[in-house]
Amino acid sequence: MAADERRLANGGGRIDFETSPARYRHWKLLIDGIVATLAMDVDEKGGLFEGYELKLNSYDLGVDIELADAFERLRFEHPQVRVVLLRSAKPRVFCAGANIRMLAGASHAHKVNFCKFTNETRNAIEDASAHSGLRTICVINGTAAGGGYELALAADHIILVDDGSAAVSLPEVPLLAVLPGTGGLTRVTDKRLVRRDHADVFCTTEEGVKGKRAVDWRLVDEVAPNTKLEAAVSARAEALAKKSDRPGDATGIALTPLDRRIAPDSRAYPHLTVAFSRDERLATLTLRGPEAPPPATVAEMAALGAAFWPLALARELDDAILDIRLNEPDIAAIVLKSEGDSAAVLAYDDLLEVNREHWLAREIRLKWKRALKRLDLTSRSLVALIEPGSCFAGTLAELVLAADRSYMLVGQRDGDNRPPASLALGEVNFSAFPMANGISRLTSRFLGHAAPLDTAYARIGQPLDAETAEELGLVTFALDDIDWDDEIRIFLEERASFSADALTGLEANLRFAGPETMESKIFARLTAWQNWIFQRPNAIGEEGALRRYGTGQKPAFDTKRV
Amino acid sequence: MAADERRLANGGGRIDFETSPARYRHWKLLIDGIVATLAMDVDEKGGLFEGYELKLNSYDLGVDIELADAFERLRFEHPQVRVVLLRSAKPRVFCAGANIRMLAGASHAHKVNFCKFTNETRNAIEDASAHSGLRTICVINGTAAGGGYELALAADHIILVDDGSAAVSLPEVPLLAVLPGTGGLTRVTDKRLVRRDHADVFCTTEEGVKGKRAVDWRLVDEVAPNTKLEAAVSARAEALAKKSDRPGDATGIALTPLDRRIAPDSRAYPHLTVAFSRDERLATLTLRGPEAPPPATVAEMAALGAAFWPLALARELDDAILDIRLNEPDIAAIVLKSEGDSAAVLAYDDLLEVNREHWLAREIRLKWKRALKRLDLTSRSLVALIEPGSCFAGTLAELVLAADRSYMLVGQRDGDNRPPASLALGEVNFSAFPMANGISRLTSRFLGHAAPLDTAYARIGQPLDAETAEELGLVTFALDDIDWDDEIRIFLEERASFSADALTGLEANLRFAGPETMESKIFARLTAWQNWIFQRPNAIGEEGALRRYGTGQKPAFDTKRV
Repeated sequence: MAADERRLANGGGRIDFETSPARYRHWKLLIDGIVATLAMDVDEKGGLFEGYELKLNSYDLGVDIELADAFERLRFEHPQVRVVLLRSAKPRVFCAGANIRMLAGASHAHKVNFCKFTNETRNAIEDASAHSGLRTICVINGTAAGGGYELALAADHIILVDDGSAAVSLPEVPLLAVLPGTGGLTRVTDKRLVRRDHADVFCTTEEGVKGKRAVDWRLVDEVAPNTKLEAAVSARAEALAKKSDRPGDATGIALTPLDRRIAPDSRAYPHLTVAFSRDERLATLTLRGPEAPPPATVAEMAALGAAFWPLALARELDDAILDIRLNEPDIAAIVLKSEGDSAAVLAYDDLLEVNREHWLAREIRLKWKRALKRLDLTSRSLVALIEPGSCFAGTLAELVLAADRSYMLVGQRDGDNRPPASLALGEVNFSAFPMANGISRLTSRFLGHAAPLDTAYARIGQPLDAETAEELGLVTFALDDIDWDDEIRIFLEERASFSADALTGLEANLRFAGPETMESKIFARLTAWQNWIFQRPNAIGEEGALRRYGTGQKPAFDTKRV
Repeated sequence: MAADERRLANGGGRIDFETSPARYRHWKLLIDGIVATLAMDVDEKGGLFEGYELKLNSYDLGVDIELADAFERLRFEHPQVRVVLLRSAKPRVFCAGANIRMLAGASHAHKVNFCKFTNETRNAIEDASAHSGLRTICVINGTAAGGGYELALAADHIILVDDGSAAVSLPEVPLLAVLPGTGGLTRVTDKRLVRRDHADVFCTTEEGVKGKRAVDWRLVDEVAPNTKLEAAVSARAEALAKKSDRPGDATGIALTPLDRRIAPDSRAYPHLTVAFSRDERLATLTLRGPEAPPPATVAEMAALGAAFWPLALARELDDAILDIRLNEPDIAAIVLKSEGDSAAVLAYDDLLEVNREHWLAREIRLKWKRALKRLDLTSRSLVALIEPGSCFAGTLAELVLAADRSYMLVGQRDGDNRPPASLALGEVNFSAFPMANGISRLTSRFLGHAAPLDTAYARIGQPLDAETAEELGLVTFALDDIDWDDEIRIFLEERASFSADALTGLEANLRFAGPETMESKIFARLTAWQNWIFQRPNAIGEEGALRRYGTGQKPAFDTKRV
């Protein structure tokens, strides 16, 4: 179950990340040429769980699932859109942030995973601007508090109405005894470049900042009186649109509903199967390679739409990861397997690489980048098993590099005629899929060492057998058939026996060697502190601020500084 | 009191950070020309608190206070020493890490502050190598487990005896359900450049790694059989000594005992007073400028020894910060004030700047760098008050830049003839004191903006009045006498009313804008996750691993991944 203490409002047993504009309850997506308007209009009665109302455009995970979906659709279905206007459909309020009653009643695991997903959604908005030419303008017509202002911070440009009352604020610390944890603290200092002492004042001022000071302190980019707001928005949209490289003449592809068969112990997608071994606390993900060679042209690729193998698989993988994160907390490890023809996988990679400037090819690679980052940030042990019949090549080899460990079988198995397993790198492994820390998984792997990276680069496209892959440092262990079963079994049993929390902390450190970026700081410095606070009685205790919010009773705090 | 649940073994009421080699109970410091040997020989009965024995060279805060002191003395008292051999005086064991019974019985606040101090000690060892030419070789003669191996990781070079049993290990995750949190995870990947999957295997293998694999995986630099160990150590010491720029002919200065008068509500040092306002939960630190002009030469400076004003004040400040951290958990905010002559402060800075290549001047500036970093990492709100009579100039202006906020009085006060307050920058504010994130406090303050930094640089040495300082962005608010008292009072009352934990998280984010370094990653990514884990039942609950360690009973874990 998703949360220990709450029931899903739809009566179901799992949180579903699939949606579509026709089903949105909280957002209105309007396309007008090169400008889209995404208007927040949260349905108070539309909470994901029972027990709270989403007043004042406050949000829960269900609201954010729609927001994430809307940006995916703008990328794929509306390639001509260059500017998104993120605004509110409600008068005098932009967004009141994450719903406090939802947070107060949520399990620790749900709070953590809710924040992780909302952070990923905001990062995806920034990624769309940085890499897809899809700029976002946030139009704040009233209160933008907490998560509401954090959403604005993901935009390229923030316009605040100057009416004497509209304000931006991060009231988490004074009001709720938690942090602005959806990137707020990090984006204020590292993106908006707000001076640290101004940020200190801002983050401890419940009512926030408005008007000229909001501009002076760089909290917003401009203010405009109500009478001039629409003109300001139009002017800015026009300016940003000019700098976009989105195609003027492209036709989008439909992100058709995922074809999923959901059974108690499995999920079956066309190109991906998830099998749960609940006694061992394992989820085995088997990704299947393409069944046909790639189309010859981008036009044919576009005609395939969402059925085009790389896009289809990326969407399935993304959905499967989110499903495990939110609905399967007891799964300790994810086993990554693949089946298919490595050469065919590389042929698809080649098509996307050659056409990487084409809008759809670009979007598909960016989708993979995001799905792989989601995997990196998934707090389950990741192990890749490379066996005969697998197709860990190019893009799929990234799964091996994303794993905490990888095991590769040497030679064939008794009674199995398939050729020995091979691993193959592609150009993509060196450039296309940077991690949150800004460098590729291979560069992270060989941090500070150019030679093994160069050696690996020289082997691009070559099928590498187990001993070679081990020697090149691409897999952790190459094992004979004799040792394979025992080694893997012992490893997985051992892993399942360790403290779940200690593993989360271990993996959150070892996976991110080297540099940090604003994005990685959000998931490390900010999120780790927030998770700590989410365990502290001052926030979550019976007398803590989250529980006492709105009751008229003041919270009682332990005053000791730790 | 230092810890809620434990009594100090000496029967006292506060932890004292002052010690000296004659009083060491756990280390033996031997100087032999350019090589010092620092031998760990922990006194089992010498625990800082009651209730545990420090077996197998395991350590608590008391052991680490001596280690930190030893490195301070090597810097100042033994400038000719170029190489430190960090080794064990006990057979077949180097160090078993932090004492587990100590950890199991410690308050959360003590655990967090213990780890913070031990991290600072290891960073100081690395700083001595990077900036003072004092290299460390760690000689591991047996078991180096957990914190024991983390101590080794701070060295420049690790030699492991190859006797078939000596091993390095980080068994925290499998054994204790916590992280190797004294920099272990970060240094393994970011300093030793251990491949992430090898690091995963290493950190989940209770018995650790020995012999050739330890070298192959870069966990140690070399292994040597017992018969060749001393020859290997000598050869390496000679090689490292050659590359050191420590002076061959200098005479050290004695770090004489601090002159402190400790009263219930105050600490009085010659150049610093700490006054506690317990009702308001404030500590006011008043730093006093020099009483005499600086000596004319470095020889005279050296003759003053520990009485030389900049060194004396740095030591006092460092001691006062540690006292507040460990002994005064209920203090919410530190108010930073100064008294004296700004021109005199700048004159001392000039002396140190001109002679910055002189070993003692270098050490004094490095001492200030470390003390200021300690302040940055202190989880109390920091506010600087710049009033008539203050001397926030050069090095002392760093305190203003370290503060979360600063208030500066405009003009004079009624009945106070002193001239209006001024603030003055020096060259040091731009270069001498990088923060843990690798950049100066001014660069952090003006992150991403060159112009205000250039403007400030042009004003070096000039006394800046309140309005100018505010305009240049150097202080948060310039206030008239009319507003001063109320504004400051309201701010401090408000600060004391917020959740202590939320403020800790807020400040840990806002203070460190921009880049991250290995050092800052240790205090952010690693420490924040560890603090989270230190709140989780899997580690600290009745059935958790820390409580059950050594009882024969296995811990019982909540298996859910968060």
